[in-house]
Amino acid sequence: MIVTFTDFGVEGPYMGQMRAVLLKEAPGEDVVDLMIDAPAFNPKASSYLLPAVLEPLASAFVCVAVVDPGVGGARCPVILRCGERWYVGPDNGLFEMIARRAETAAEWWEISWRPERLSASFHGRDLFAPVAARLACGGEAALAGIATPVDLDRSVYDDWPADLQEVIYIDGYGNCMLGVRWDAATPIESVVTDSVTVAPAETFSDVSPGSAFCYRNAIGLVEIAVNQGSAAVQLGLQIGSQVAVRKLSGK
Amino acid sequence: MIVTFTDFGVEGPYMGQMRAVLLKEAPGEDVVDLMIDAPAFNPKASSYLLPAVLEPLASAFVCVAVVDPGVGGARCPVILRCGERWYVGPDNGLFEMIARRAETAAEWWEISWRPERLSASFHGRDLFAPVAARLACGGEAALAGIATPVDLDRSVYDDWPADLQEVIYIDGYGNCMLGVRWDAATPIESVVTDSVTVAPAETFSDVSPGSAFCYRNAIGLVEIAVNQGSAAVQLGLQIGSQVAVRKLSGK
Amino acid sequence: MIVTFTDFGVEGPYMGQMRAVLLKEAPGEDVVDLMIDAPAFNPKASSYLLPAVLEPLASAFVCVAVVDPGVGGARCPVILRCGERWYVGPDNGLFEMIARRAETAAEWWEISWRPERLSASFHGRDLFAPVAARLACGGEAALAGIATPVDLDRSVYDDWPADLQEVIYIDGYGNCMLGVRWDAATPIESVVTDSVTVAPAETFSDVSPGSAFCYRNAIGLVEIAVNQGSAAVQLGLQIGSQVAVRKLSGK
Repeated sequence: MIVTFTDFGVEGPYMGQMRAVLLKEAPGEDVVDLMIDAPAFNPKASSYLLPAVLEPLASAFVCVAVVDPGVGGARCPVILRCGERWYVGPDNGLFEMIARRAETAAEWWEISWRPERLSASFHGRDLFAPVAARLACGGEAALAGIATPVDLDRSVYDDWPADLQEVIYIDGYGNCMLGVRWDAATPIESVVTDSVTVAPAETFSDVSPGSAFCYRNAIGLVEIAVNQGSAAVQLGLQIGSQVAVRKLSGK
Repeated sequence: MIVTFTDFGVEGPYMGQMRAVLLKEAPGEDVVDLMIDAPAFNPKASSYLLPAVLEPLASAFVCVAVVDPGVGGARCPVILRCGERWYVGPDNGLFEMIARRAETAAEWWEISWRPERLSASFHGRDLFAPVAARLACGGEAALAGIATPVDLDRSVYDDWPADLQEVIYIDGYGNCMLGVRWDAATPIESVVTDSVTVAPAETFSDVSPGSAFCYRNAIGLVEIAVNQGSAAVQLGLQIGSQVAVRKLSGK
Repeated sequence: MIVTFTDFGVEGPYMGQMRAVLLKEAPGEDVVDLMIDAPAFNPKASSYLLPAVLEPLASAFVCVAVVDPGVGGARCPVILRCGERWYVGPDNGLFEMIARRAETAAEWWEISWRPERLSASFHGRDLFAPVAARLACGGEAALAGIATPVDLDRSVYDDWPADLQEVIYIDGYGNCMLGVRWDAATPIESVVTDSVTVAPAETFSDVSPGSAFCYRNAIGLVEIAVNQGSAAVQLGLQIGSQVAVRKLSGK
């Protein structure tokens, strides 16, 4: 299975062309668009979102992930392997939390192969998709001649915390996901934003309509939500808004 | 073939994760997202929309349908079988019109199986998708040990009419679909809304630009439309707006 | 591979139903939604967009394309063949630039087959999709009895230029694609709109934030963009806006 994680949106030819290239190079492979609205121009927020989104999947897959900036920039396109899971994309921090949290050793490759025609603005289609398709078809053997094992310098991301106390994603309902794993923060006393303090609840129906709360969302993150309302609008939150997740004392 | 009918939208990881689970459990199966914008929080409107949307499909499929409320609530998740068509979802009325209009006897099961990890807010991914995948792969034999045949009490929906004289869906162009099958209402004299009375026409090009009319839409429902305009905006209609479909007298 | 190029959007049952029909008739075939937001009601703009969008694909495919007007109108539904590439859709100019630029002779058929049930408003699902599926499964042999070779009169499109100096598509970021192939216009001195004159650049990072420029976009067209901004909003451009692409003199 090949899964995509991008900020391309559904408009335009972008997802369609990338999928067409994936299926041209890996015919019959299952291709799943996991997210098409990853936080644009924010590889840091995306880095905390990616492992959560991928968690329920099968243990083996190839993930092709593209979030600007960095794509097409000076830093080399890379491949990351954690066990049977492969990741293909830009070296801009997007895979940082995947690598750091991996149970098996994270192995890195730099992609040396370049396509005959490489557009200035669409490396997802021209570079990352063909490499992902080869990995899906041939596994590690497919890397011969197109990528070089490297000992990547991760120190540039040393100051990224284990969990990020920020809003990293807002869904279509206005629910605000934090870069904080529920299981790493529990038991939670409250989450404090610029304007309010919200208490935890099990799910939407446990609070009255219009009330804000936090809960363990379906991908294991702390999420701020409003029953039958938009937390983003009601609490004035956006991607990047700082929050403080407070643990119950004595726990 | 597995088809999905949900109110998840294209944003966020929701459709992608459900599709990934479906393909993990039923590799290579054709999966079609039939609708991703079913009327949210309105299983009654969805119940009149679902049979119309499914009508042009093959005679055999598994449909996994999720529309709140009721999902994750007190009522048991269910399976409905009508001939070679299977339906998996919440018991909140969503399948009421499918069952009532079925040519073959409708058979019901309650799903007793629960996944190892069941999130509070995403039963579509955790519960309904794995069951749908098993049905797609194994048919009725797959139900052994995970579901129990039941004689469901449908009396709670006894007051739902055969056809619903309401707007049940508004598409991206502003066309307003009614919960009324054209063939059950024909010959139509007019459709009366709060503000106007519109006459039937064959299709858009039969009326002048800006004019409202009603017609048999592509899924067999009575639809109010405006040539080169938005019926929803122009006539002030929304999902749930009451209308009256008037039959030609003497017919 | 079957690819779709439509103005259906992601809302409603339209894409889902067309895909379901394609997979019912051609099970297991790879189906790619290449674009779901082609310029609505503008087959001329779509005609210049289609070859650019299809360019990176495999050399063999069936493309089913639907853009109003003309669909369901008086002109016959058609099939176009250019080598191993097949096109199915309305005869409203949508395939004009594909045919004109084809390296091999363009062959046309009129589709004489009609489905048992043909809706007034959804020929994409009822007529074009079944024909496309048969072509994907059976190639030219599938046309026996359902289509007739014709020598279509293309003179109605004689005044369409080789490249169209208009905005033909605006993506979700506000980037404005022109109907002009970069390679046909290079070396470019500037692109002149009603309000500004913009100079070429290699890519976004070559100009300062907020600056407008033109560049060779990922599908080979001249595109007007603004670094970290929306060219459409900032320059007041919309689909159909006239521009002038100026070549460097002496080249």
